[in-house]
Amino acid sequence: MSKTKNFYLENIPLTEAWQRLVAALEKAGAWSALPGEEVVLDEALGRVTAQPVWAALSSPGYHASAMDGFAVRSADTVGASESAPKRLSLGPNGEASYVDTGDAIPSWADAVIMIEQTQRRTGDDGTEAIEIQAGVAPWTAIRPMGEDMVASELVLPANHLLKPVDLGALAGCGHGSVSVRRRPRVAVIPTGTELITVQQAARNGLKPGDIIEYNSLVLSSQVREWGGLPTRYPIVVDDYQLIKATVLEAAASHDLVLVNAGSSAGSEDFTSSIVEELGTLLVHGVAVRPGHPVILGMIAGPGTPVIGIPGYPVSCALTSETFVEPLLSRWLGVPPLEKPRVQATITRKLLSPVGEDEMVRVTVGRVGDRVVAAPLSRGAGVITSLVRADGIVRIPRFSEGVDAGQEVAVELYRNPSEIERTVVHIGSHDLCLDLLAQHLAESGRRFTSANAGSLGGLLALRRGDAHLAGSHLLDPATGGYNVCYVKKYLPDLPVVLMTFMYREQGLMVAKGNPRGIRTLADLARDDVQYVNRQRGAGTRVLLDYHLEKLGIAPETIRGYRREEFTHMAVAVAVQSGVTDCGLGIASAAHALGLDFIPLERERYDLVIPRVHYDSDLLQPLLDLIRGPKLRREIAALPGYDTTQMGEVVSEP
Amino acid sequence: MSKTKNFYLENIPLTEAWQRLVAALEKAGAWSALPGEEVVLDEALGRVTAQPVWAALSSPGYHASAMDGFAVRSADTVGASESAPKRLSLGPNGEASYVDTGDAIPSWADAVIMIEQTQRRTGDDGTEAIEIQAGVAPWTAIRPMGEDMVASELVLPANHLLKPVDLGALAGCGHGSVSVRRRPRVAVIPTGTELITVQQAARNGLKPGDIIEYNSLVLSSQVREWGGLPTRYPIVVDDYQLIKATVLEAAASHDLVLVNAGSSAGSEDFTSSIVEELGTLLVHGVAVRPGHPVILGMIAGPGTPVIGIPGYPVSCALTSETFVEPLLSRWLGVPPLEKPRVQATITRKLLSPVGEDEMVRVTVGRVGDRVVAAPLSRGAGVITSLVRADGIVRIPRFSEGVDAGQEVAVELYRNPSEIERTVVHIGSHDLCLDLLAQHLAESGRRFTSANAGSLGGLLALRRGDAHLAGSHLLDPATGGYNVCYVKKYLPDLPVVLMTFMYREQGLMVAKGNPRGIRTLADLARDDVQYVNRQRGAGTRVLLDYHLEKLGIAPETIRGYRREEFTHMAVAVAVQSGVTDCGLGIASAAHALGLDFIPLERERYDLVIPRVHYDSDLLQPLLDLIRGPKLRREIAALPGYDTTQMGEVVSEP
Repeated sequence: MSKTKNFYLENIPLTEAWQRLVAALEKAGAWSALPGEEVVLDEALGRVTAQPVWAALSSPGYHASAMDGFAVRSADTVGASESAPKRLSLGPNGEASYVDTGDAIPSWADAVIMIEQTQRRTGDDGTEAIEIQAGVAPWTAIRPMGEDMVASELVLPANHLLKPVDLGALAGCGHGSVSVRRRPRVAVIPTGTELITVQQAARNGLKPGDIIEYNSLVLSSQVREWGGLPTRYPIVVDDYQLIKATVLEAAASHDLVLVNAGSSAGSEDFTSSIVEELGTLLVHGVAVRPGHPVILGMIAGPGTPVIGIPGYPVSCALTSETFVEPLLSRWLGVPPLEKPRVQATITRKLLSPVGEDEMVRVTVGRVGDRVVAAPLSRGAGVITSLVRADGIVRIPRFSEGVDAGQEVAVELYRNPSEIERTVVHIGSHDLCLDLLAQHLAESGRRFTSANAGSLGGLLALRRGDAHLAGSHLLDPATGGYNVCYVKKYLPDLPVVLMTFMYREQGLMVAKGNPRGIRTLADLARDDVQYVNRQRGAGTRVLLDYHLEKLGIAPETIRGYRREEFTHMAVAVAVQSGVTDCGLGIASAAHALGLDFIPLERERYDLVIPRVHYDSDLLQPLLDLIRGPKLRREIAALPGYDTTQMGEVVSEP
Repeated sequence: MSKTKNFYLENIPLTEAWQRLVAALEKAGAWSALPGEEVVLDEALGRVTAQPVWAALSSPGYHASAMDGFAVRSADTVGASESAPKRLSLGPNGEASYVDTGDAIPSWADAVIMIEQTQRRTGDDGTEAIEIQAGVAPWTAIRPMGEDMVASELVLPANHLLKPVDLGALAGCGHGSVSVRRRPRVAVIPTGTELITVQQAARNGLKPGDIIEYNSLVLSSQVREWGGLPTRYPIVVDDYQLIKATVLEAAASHDLVLVNAGSSAGSEDFTSSIVEELGTLLVHGVAVRPGHPVILGMIAGPGTPVIGIPGYPVSCALTSETFVEPLLSRWLGVPPLEKPRVQATITRKLLSPVGEDEMVRVTVGRVGDRVVAAPLSRGAGVITSLVRADGIVRIPRFSEGVDAGQEVAVELYRNPSEIERTVVHIGSHDLCLDLLAQHLAESGRRFTSANAGSLGGLLALRRGDAHLAGSHLLDPATGGYNVCYVKKYLPDLPVVLMTFMYREQGLMVAKGNPRGIRTLADLARDDVQYVNRQRGAGTRVLLDYHLEKLGIAPETIRGYRREEFTHMAVAVAVQSGVTDCGLGIASAAHALGLDFIPLERERYDLVIPRVHYDSDLLQPLLDLIRGPKLRREIAALPGYDTTQMGEVVSEP
């Protein structure tokens, strides 16, 4: 039951929120790099130097031979030629002395002759010598002392992230250890009575209301990736005193405390009150989406900053990128992480709330000469949208959004080179695309897929937003697939139509078919609840075609207006009991253990503009579809027929 | 003493050498990704999935409230408006039930109304209710079961490098652990009788011929960075049987064996013979520089690949990048590392041997609208050239090199954004530039400096290769500094001439001045050996000016033709006893404990083109030079006078 409490958060702009935190840290003397600790070089990789390092020894520490050869006096070699070779005696007090690469040059010598340029000679008296056919200049083939580093010279500055070769340089000039910044200690405290561990879930399954706690895993991993030392606390139930005690204890032994969830203004959101009681509440609510319910504060006494991190997983991860990463970088003395940036064309119109910065997850690929960014789910609860994201587009406050086709800056999570080898699919959803993606990865291609339905895919091709589109659009006039739609929607774009597979469409119903559904005619029954696919989806076209043939008016079907965007979403709606049936593919029903009433065997084609069909980028994909391996795997799935896989239906 | 042995290596092109290795691995069944091992999610960050992962549970696992609010039947809310609000009863069997964000929706409800859009009301009979002023559509503010992941759906493909959010997704769909590729085990065996550990060197110093062994540290760190598990062996002396036994033991328990040094064809280069004895020698000598003496082979029995890595530290690190990294990537199932690339203008002509690929280390910065790449030392023994390198330029076989001003592709070791905040200095060398670099790093600027002498710096400004040039060129006519040179060499370039500091130039001699050198006149003595600076260096100009004034002919000075490029190189030549004296700055003499005979107090200016002087990029540098902090530090060094630091001598 809700307590009486202020339900409204502040809406502090991002930069102001950050500045308040910085000011409070400065006041507490915590806005500077952490002190150094001495570590041996074997443990210093990826750490940050806390001091400049000056060479303790010169390297080389003596004049060293740069070659395998003979140390000589250059003066002794003057005048040697092919026609008048010179002999230099070996042995003690000789004129030449063998040296390996790296050996010290004897003090009497001032040059080295490569062994390849000498001949061994034995004199009549048995004395050993070398013969040379050319003179050498002083200092030939000698690495002078200090060539690499001179004792006392600067080798590495402070605030330098140690790479493998840096460790080599440190050792080379006589340092066995190095002073590096102490790792920032970060407490990660998950709170919530509804939370269970993934181990509990794996053992006992989920009860309604159970939420698997994984934000603390994400936060700890981020902290580790950014050079910090996380402490992942056990789950704390929603109890004011318990949370308070945990925060207080953590603040005493950490540089930063992250409290996950309870940061909003609901009945069990204790964090802001706890921060107020224990210190100073600087910010409660930041004008950013996702991630509005952020708390920034300071715990008095130790002067430890505390961040209340929102509970939705996407908000959690992005809030951490926004506030935790730059803080850790500051403490480590390195510049904040800069993601690579790329300009891209956005594929869909995005409306964005004025008054908040919005961070939109996108996939990114190069299609022809354009880089395109396709928005992913904006739901703050959809962690897979971050898993699949290639980058983030920021829509600033005071902007109402962006139009389809507009240029946007993308902050990339990946190396730009990965973008260049990304195959972009927009169109109909099928599980086989996951298999395809899996195999493509082995040939160095990434495959991104946006589920826009068959028609959505064709329109994406028309706009130049994708390399290919999966489509299964039934032509009611002929009973064929796709051809007439391609003619209609892509009249001027030369495309190749290639069959991927045939698949079984039908009605998915709960196990045992409790409603006794047999045919599409049952959808009109009063006691049957249906869930539909979105307009433009091939499965929707199929339904509407059959309804018309049967003379069933859509209005008579309960749930006709509730639209889902994928087969699996329909299947889960049936599985959860929200609805009694939905139209979809056999493999989706099979995956969730639903019963399946076959309706139609349909052809699923790939529509590929000729220009991409002929490109290097797509060859591994075409090879896969023509080859036996993927065919075998798909044929083994329920409801697929691969006999025509890879056959070209029509060419431009 | 040299053994009789073939001194010549093969010269196999890089791609062919790699293909031979791949073919041998394929034959041995070792050219595929390693098997998986199950690890808990807390330990899976940065590992690579060995299998596709399918969701074990749906997330959410039930229909969940997306808001703090009240679960209702949408049908009950129809018709509510501001003028005709509706009441929904609370309590058991009520029409509304409070839910926190994430709570399960009661089975009778099909929508959630945000708490902010409700008013609490108590009826006359004491019953509790909420009042609403608008209806809600079905499924409002509900996250349907499976919104994020549906059980059985693909969550992550195989061969996926696990990021923090990926771990969250795995936990969210019920996986407490994940199958990841076993880390490739790599044995790193340093060999060489001349090698000592850095701990020994730090304790006992270096004797002539001692080399600090650090290649195995660099190799182990690289392996770790690339996802492998290194075993760093202790140093093995140059003993054929010992090395053979170590290689054999390592091959039995590792996926890859790296033998460092002994890979050439000298008297103590055993690796190739050992590989031949224990298996197959595939390649001995690759057409690449640095890094020619590479051995690729297979150890029979375990079928373990072995790579003989050259001993020069730069060759060692680059050979590892070339052969070890792609091998580890293959075994991990990920694409080989791709460095970001940038097109740049090379600042110097580079001659390169035809017949070998050459990898040239460069620093990179943006000067105006050009990205410039300045070659660093090409010595294979100079590890600091890799420490300072921003990237690598490859000069292919069959190319004789590149001309100054030519466009080249640079493979970057850094994020391209770092290049944008790099200040490029080319000119005279002074220790104060290191201090400047150190402080600049704190304001987010990188400072790269190439020692080209004063005149070299002015010419670099003329070509547009640098943002500024340090210069101390004496005008013999006036006794002033720099002004007439700037007029002569940069007649059309508006520049600001700003004083950095005054510094003491003089003769550096060994401690105690054993040769009794007092003045420049002593340089002409028969028993005095001198070491000079290169032509174009301000110190060389200073010497020549004084020699002319004194009527000393340069030819009469022993060592006048031996040129060093920095003050420290001159100082170390004196320290090592190779020479008796050299001209240089007081701080260099002081750093190496040399005696110093003052000759001249000279002005060292920074020459800054107006366009850069006014740029944002240089402001932190100018602030530093005008401010008190750097001035104080420099004034504390021996031989510097900072009273005019930051004063502008002349403006355009």
